[in-house]
This record gives sequence, C-alpha cells and structure tokens, in this order.
Amino acid sequence: MQKNLVIAGHELKSRLFLGTGRYPNPYIQNKAIEASETEVLTFAIRRVNLQDPHEDSILQHVGGRYFQFLPNTSGAKNAEEAIRIARLAKASGISDWIKVEISKNEKTLLPDPIETLKATEVLAKEGFVVLPYISDDPVICKKLEEAGAAAVMPGGSPIGTGLGILNPYNISLIVEELNVPVIVDAGLGSAADVTQAMELGADGVLLNTAIAKAKDPIAMAHSIKHAIQAGRLSYLAGRIPKKKYATASSPISSGI
Amino acid sequence: MQKNLVIAGHELKSRLFLGTGRYPNPYIQNKAIEASETEVLTFAIRRVNLQDPHEDSILQHVGGRYFQFLPNTSGAKNAEEAIRIARLAKASGISDWIKVEISKNEKTLLPDPIETLKATEVLAKEGFVVLPYISDDPVICKKLEEAGAAAVMPGGSPIGTGLGILNPYNISLIVEELNVPVIVDAGLGSAADVTQAMELGADGVLLNTAIAKAKDPIAMAHSIKHAIQAGRLSYLAGRIPKKKYATASSPISSGI
Amino acid sequence: MQKNLVIAGHELKSRLFLGTGRYPNPYIQNKAIEASETEVLTFAIRRVNLQDPHEDSILQHVGGRYFQFLPNTSGAKNAEEAIRIARLAKASGISDWIKVEISKNEKTLLPDPIETLKATEVLAKEGFVVLPYISDDPVICKKLEEAGAAAVMPGGSPIGTGLGILNPYNISLIVEELNVPVIVDAGLGSAADVTQAMELGADGVLLNTAIAKAKDPIAMAHSIKHAIQAGRLSYLAGRIPKKKYATASSPISSGI
Amino acid sequence: MQKNLVIAGHELKSRLFLGTGRYPNPYIQNKAIEASETEVLTFAIRRVNLQDPHEDSILQHVGGRYFQFLPNTSGAKNAEEAIRIARLAKASGISDWIKVEISKNEKTLLPDPIETLKATEVLAKEGFVVLPYISDDPVICKKLEEAGAAAVMPGGSPIGTGLGILNPYNISLIVEELNVPVIVDAGLGSAADVTQAMELGADGVLLNTAIAKAKDPIAMAHSIKHAIQAGRLSYLAGRIPKKKYATASSPISSGI
Repeated sequence: MQKNLVIAGHELKSRLFLGTGRYPNPYIQNKAIEASETEVLTFAIRRVNLQDPHEDSILQHVGGRYFQFLPNTSGAKNAEEAIRIARLAKASGISDWIKVEISKNEKTLLPDPIETLKATEVLAKEGFVVLPYISDDPVICKKLEEAGAAAVMPGGSPIGTGLGILNPYNISLIVEELNVPVIVDAGLGSAADVTQAMELGADGVLLNTAIAKAKDPIAMAHSIKHAIQAGRLSYLAGRIPKKKYATASSPISSGI
Repeated sequence: MQKNLVIAGHELKSRLFLGTGRYPNPYIQNKAIEASETEVLTFAIRRVNLQDPHEDSILQHVGGRYFQFLPNTSGAKNAEEAIRIARLAKASGISDWIKVEISKNEKTLLPDPIETLKATEVLAKEGFVVLPYISDDPVICKKLEEAGAAAVMPGGSPIGTGLGILNPYNISLIVEELNVPVIVDAGLGSAADVTQAMELGADGVLLNTAIAKAKDPIAMAHSIKHAIQAGRLSYLAGRIPKKKYATASSPISSGI
Repeated sequence: MQKNLVIAGHELKSRLFLGTGRYPNPYIQNKAIEASETEVLTFAIRRVNLQDPHEDSILQHVGGRYFQFLPNTSGAKNAEEAIRIARLAKASGISDWIKVEISKNEKTLLPDPIETLKATEVLAKEGFVVLPYISDDPVICKKLEEAGAAAVMPGGSPIGTGLGILNPYNISLIVEELNVPVIVDAGLGSAADVTQAMELGADGVLLNTAIAKAKDPIAMAHSIKHAIQAGRLSYLAGRIPKKKYATASSPISSGI
Repeated sequence: MQKNLVIAGHELKSRLFLGTGRYPNPYIQNKAIEASETEVLTFAIRRVNLQDPHEDSILQHVGGRYFQFLPNTSGAKNAEEAIRIARLAKASGISDWIKVEISKNEKTLLPDPIETLKATEVLAKEGFVVLPYISDDPVICKKLEEAGAAAVMPGGSPIGTGLGILNPYNISLIVEELNVPVIVDAGLGSAADVTQAMELGADGVLLNTAIAKAKDPIAMAHSIKHAIQAGRLSYLAGRIPKKKYATASSPISSGI
C-alpha cells in the first residue's frame, strides 16, 4: 500500500532528508544518520571546498552505505550566487541534485521567493534536479513546480527555531495543489511536528537541528524515523472526522 | 534506555490501551488489534452480559495471545453504579482492573469528577487496580492518585470527537505533578495527536474510535504503534528549545 | 439589544470584574479602575484585616463612586477555611458577595474542585452571593450552578500567567450548559484574550495582573474596556462561519 | 499617546479599511459603514463601469461624508491587467490609491507574489499610492515596501474564509521588518481576529465579509470598531509576559 517516494525518477525508501551540521561530534553524527535510516544527506557547498570532495569527513564516515547527496546553496544572497554554487557542486562530481536556498535576511534566514524562482528556472533548464527551499505560500510553490522543480520544500517555520509548522493550513493547500513531491523543510523541532507534517500529506521532511541538537541525537533520530512512518500511515489510513460532540465508543458487553 | 510501562506491578511492552468497539467487523478488529501490538484491551461491562464471559467474540478471536483486560464502567451515572459494575466484572473473572468511567451528560460524555473520585476511593480500597477516566484538571488528577488510582486517564477531548488534545498545557502539568502513570484517554484522532501526547510525557494513550473508524483501521493501528514510539523517544531524547529567530544549520562545506 | 449583566438580581453596566492587587501605586490603580469602567472590585480578605474595612486604601481612593465589592477567599486551602473567611467578610459589612477561591497547590494556584463545591453549597445556603473560581471542566461548573452559585468563574489558564484561554472549546461548552452567568477568570493576558472570551459567549471577565502589570496599566484598562465591548457585540452579532476555501468579497464595480 | 495612521501623507482617524461588497442591502451597508467609523472604502474596479463613477450606489448613499476610496484590482490575473485597471480607476477620477490584488487561483484567491511585485513597482513609479494585497511572507512584504508600496497588506487567511490569522508569527515579523504601515487584509472573521491583528502590531485591518455577512452587520461593525481600539491600545500598553506558573494577584486585605 505504502509506495516509496520518487524524486526525478529516483526511488527513496526513507522519506527523511537529513542535514549534516551541528552534531556534537562525528561519531554521534554517524550514529544518528544510521538510526534515522535516511538516504538523502544535505550540506552547504561553498566554492573553496570543492577541490577534493571525497576527502571530506561525511563521505569518509558514511562510506560503505549509499546516499543521495543534496548539496544546498546556503549562504547565497541571490539567484546568481545560487546558480554559481550549484554549478560548482555539479562540476566537482558531488551531485546534480541541488537544494536552492537563498536568503538575504540574517535574522530569519527566510527564503527569497523571487530569486529562488529565478534560480530554479535556470538550474532546471540546465538539467539539475532542483529542490527549492521556499516559504509556505501555495502560489509560489506552484510556480516553482511549473519552473521545473523536482520537489518543493516549503518551510514550517524559520530554520533552527523548532517552532514546528506555523501554518498547517498552507501546507495542506500546497499538498493539494502540487503534483511534484512536497518536502517540509525547516523549523520542525520534534517528532510531533514531523508526524503532523506527514499527516498533512507531505511526501517527506527535511530536518537538521531537531536531531543534531537534541539532548540525545541518536534517540531523536530513531524517534523521527517512527514519526515519519506514523504520519505517513495516518495520512494514508484516513483519519476520522472531527466532531463537536461526543460519541460513545465502548460497546455494551454483549459485544465482547 | 526506554523502560517499559508498569501499572500495579504489571509490566507492559506496549503503551497503547485499545478499545474494542465500533470496528467494521470482527476480522478487521482482530487485525487492527494485532497490528497495534497493544496488550491492554478495554470494553464496557454491563451486568446482563457476564454470565459467560469466555464465550464472547473478542476472547474467541484473540485467543492464543495474552491480553490484560481493562473493563470499563461506561454507562454508569454515579459512583454507586460504577462500583456495582466493577464488582460484577471482577466476580465474573474477567479482571480486577477497572476503568472508572462515570458520566451523566449524554452530549459530552465528560466524566463526573466528584463521583469518579468516590468510586476510585472505594474500589482502590477493595483491591481493584483502578484507572479512572477524568478531565484534564491537574488538581482532580492528583486527588485520584492520592485516592489510590493505579494510573490516571485524563481526556484529551470528549470521547469520539477526534479533537485531539485541547489543552496540552494541562497534560504537561499532570505529568509533572503525578507519580503514577498518566494515560491520555479520549478524543485522540490520529497519529499526530498520539505523538503529541507521548511527547508531552504521557506514559501511554487509550484509543478506540481513531482506529476503529479510520478508513483503514489496520493501517491506522500500524500508524499509532509508530506514533507511540516516536512520541516516547522524542520525550526521552529531549527536544530542542523553541527560539524566535533562525539559526543556520548547514555547515560550510569545509565541514563535509 | 445589548442587555446588561445581572448577577443575583444586581444589574451591572460593565462586564469587567477587576482585581485590585499588584499595581505600581495607588494613583495608577485608581486611574486604571476609572478607565476600565468596572463596577466590581475583587480583593483577598483575611481575618486580621477586618477590624476597620472602611479605612482601607481602595475605599478611600475610589470614594464617591459606587462599587460592588467581591472579596475572595484567596489563601484558603479547603472549604472550611473559605467558609470562615466568607463569614468574616460578611460580618465586617464589606459584602455578602464572595468569590470562593481554594487552592493547595502553590505552583499553579489551580482551584480545588471538591472543596470549592463544598464551600459553594454551604455559603449559598447561608444566603451569600457565591461566585466560585473553578477549572474549565463543564461538569464541575454545572455542579456549582446546581449548588447555588450565582455565577461561575472558570479559569482561562493559571492565575497571573497571561497564557490566555488554553481551552476555548471548554469555555464554549460551559456557556452552552449553564444558565447562570459565566465569568472567565484567571490567566487572561491582553485585549485579544478578553475579546476571545467574550466572543465565546462569556458573560464577563475577571482580570487583575493583565492590567496591573502591563507597562501602561491605564492604557491597558482602556483597551480591556473596548475588548469587552468588541467581544460581546461580536458574539451577539453572529460571526460568519469558517470555510476552507475563498469567496470573493469585492463586488464588480457596477455594484458601486 | 495614540497617534493616527498616516498613509502617503494622508492621516486617518480610523484604522479600519472596509469592503463594500456582499451586504444584504444598501441600507444595512450604509448603516454598517457608519457604525464602523471607517474612512477608507474599498471595491473592485472593472473597465466597463467607469463611465460615470459618481452615479454609483455607494457614492450616492455615503454622500455628505468624506471617504478615501481604495479601488482594488480584484479579478486581475497578472500585473498587466492590474496596471490597466489601476490606470482606468485613476483616469475616471475615483482615486489615485490602488489596492493591487492579483490572483489566478479561483479556489484560494491567494495573491500572486511575482505579479504583485511587478505591478507595485510600475504603479508606484507612476505616482499611485499602492497598497498591495500579499501573502504573509515577510520577505516579499519587504520587497513590496522597497518597490514603493505606501502600505503592505498581508493576508491573515484566504479571502472570505473567516479563518482569522493563520500565522501570527509571520504577521509579527512583518511588523518588525517593515517601515511602512502594515494592514492585515483577508480572512479575518470576527472581533477576536481583529483584536489579535492589532495587538500583533498591525497598523490597521481590512474587512469585508466578516461585517457584511455577519447575522447583524451593523452590530458587527460596532464590534470591529471597538476591537481595533482594544487591540491597538493593548499593543501600545505593553502586555504582560507569558509565564508557565502562577502568581497570586490578590493582595492580602491589609492592602485594601
């Protein structure tokens, strides 16, 4: 019943996209990645670090297992910078998947919709698998799909805040309106947030801080794995409608 | 790390208490019970049905596996009626566990705190393992503990409404104040509600309608099993604090 | 259209009950009382202070205007103490109105439903106009009405927290179920909370900290006066239903 | 203390912008406008209706009082159409104020951020006083300010839904980030929503359906007038912080 997530023809058994930053140490990072069962890792790319990508610590630690890398353009302040970063990532052989992430506001790190749309258009045409991080505005999400995004990543709340999904209504609308996968990205702080996202119909979630900065990141990674299952199954199972007044649930005992 | 729930010296691997009413048919009921991995089944007891409890349909279907039965006093309008029902249930050999459930209001089925406290006091003294269904008022929950309740079952919202946890703050306070297990009962409508309840620190949840009346009760039972794991692990793992402003999570790529 | 609030045959033009504690100074207290247009003042009564009630500072400052005094039993830990305080208040000539407020929990100051019900029964029979402070449990609120309460005062959230109405659903149910006035008491933090309370159908609100500890208590008192008007009128005017999808509101210009 | 709202050098005593559609009849429309004390009326402009604007029903009914007209471009599907409508409105002598409202999605009527930004840039350069209706995305709101908007109008929820403010956090951020006035537009359903918007720091609100389709539009107009006062004063007065635990508010009676 529960089909796998497919992005750009690539099938993923896990619906978790996991960031690689802010863990207490590489050992815990690696154990958390393992516990989460994620197949997609995301990290920021910057020009200077692309000389020898296969020497880096993540790739060394996670060696032996297969990951889809999703480099992001974090730090880019406009479309031009994001496009340049994406091209460098591809040229270095890391991945042709790119998470477009463009922000000028240091306080909120909220995505710039205009620049994000521009970068998505250009990169999709160049053959990238583009996953833009964007606000929860259903209209701009639809435009990103039309511009060639392979999946769209609306934010629940600002990056790293743990505020969860500030506007569940909008996430629902986005799920309704889009045909490409919807990955809720940013602001999710706990299992309850993840279950809610999936139950609203999201196709996946991207987390980083919620796991990396939990008191016990490995236990939280386990938790999130279950939360995704819980929310996905609940969405597919079809929850009961909400009602104002009570209905007795216990049968009289002739029923036992 | 994750210790099992213990109620009155009885260890339970699952933190789900499952109602047995309102399923489409016995086959689906049985499959849902199985998928949920619950060890505690609850159902209403009435005097007339206690002649031959071992002939009833649930016991026949679930035969072979072990369940802790938790009969409830649903239908009782005062302490006296609840006490009488509890004694009959025990006398018939079904169980010495009893969920005290007393309500006069047909529209809301909300529990009567005064009568519930009375019945709990009497039954606890008689040696019952008493689990009272009660409002989310932390003061009355504490009084029930003091009266000898083996666990306390505050409602999230009225029975069968699917409105979830109307007052998460109160559930948190109850968890803080009580020493006996807290089982959130009533009103939970989906996996997201269950994950939230567990993440607030509840020791378990009781569901019925959310599973029995889901479009696919078996899938929902699977979902709820994961939701309990997710919420419990998230509670134990220690979630990140909520913040107003953003924090970048992606490391610069020298970190990869 | 907008009838006045009547409690125990006493008509009140204002639907605000105002606490008299925690103001920066008597001048601001007096100005805030004036700005609020309240007609009911509440304060804690203790045995030792009843020798000469007409000498106290509030009565001196507010002299010239008429107030209904609503002494409360704050500090009482059980029914017996509350009853004793109420009788002393009455004997001293301050008022035969009494707000029953009983709590054992110093951290939450949440009301004890069992003791509150006991005290209400006794005091109502003695002819007091009893207004009990209670949790938002609709069942216990109904019992208080049946015990003779002249109005019932469910809390929005714990005293002084400013958390507002934690469970609007329950306040709605209480309004539906009760025939005596419902005064939302405790936890309201701002005008938005007050407007919401009144819009849910409350007959009045009791505030103290929200006004006394606002940065500008006098401006906040003005605000609350408007909030009560706004919420009451909105409740009576009959708000539009909530809908999932949009409806254009602008007429085409042939309509102008 | 409470300064008036100024938009493009124009001072307004009322912070309510009122739509003119969907009232039961012109009499009630007129009475509601009067009760609301609004000074800004908004309505949709379409090319065909501009031959003789001073003959239209609103202008006839409201004659004698002064209103700032805020025609809107409702029905426009892109910047080009919106610009054309705005120019026609100006040419007909109705107003050089224009509410840019552009949507392609009939189901949600959510604003198109790309086209709205384009139209705002062009019209601001042409000397219009531009007030764009936009999503609650703080980044695009800031871009509209930079493009010359005289005020920015983020939506609380989709037009006509009465869902209120789906994301209060974003409205707060917008208020923090912008220097031009912020008018919360769309989706507000009642006085409680309006009080909340103003308390979040909005400079004004735009309503239509909430008043026009209330059971009693005139009473609701009164209510909204008070709600704006309540919310604005509460914002200026500085509400108490929210706390987890209780603080006693009643002074002991030696204090009275």
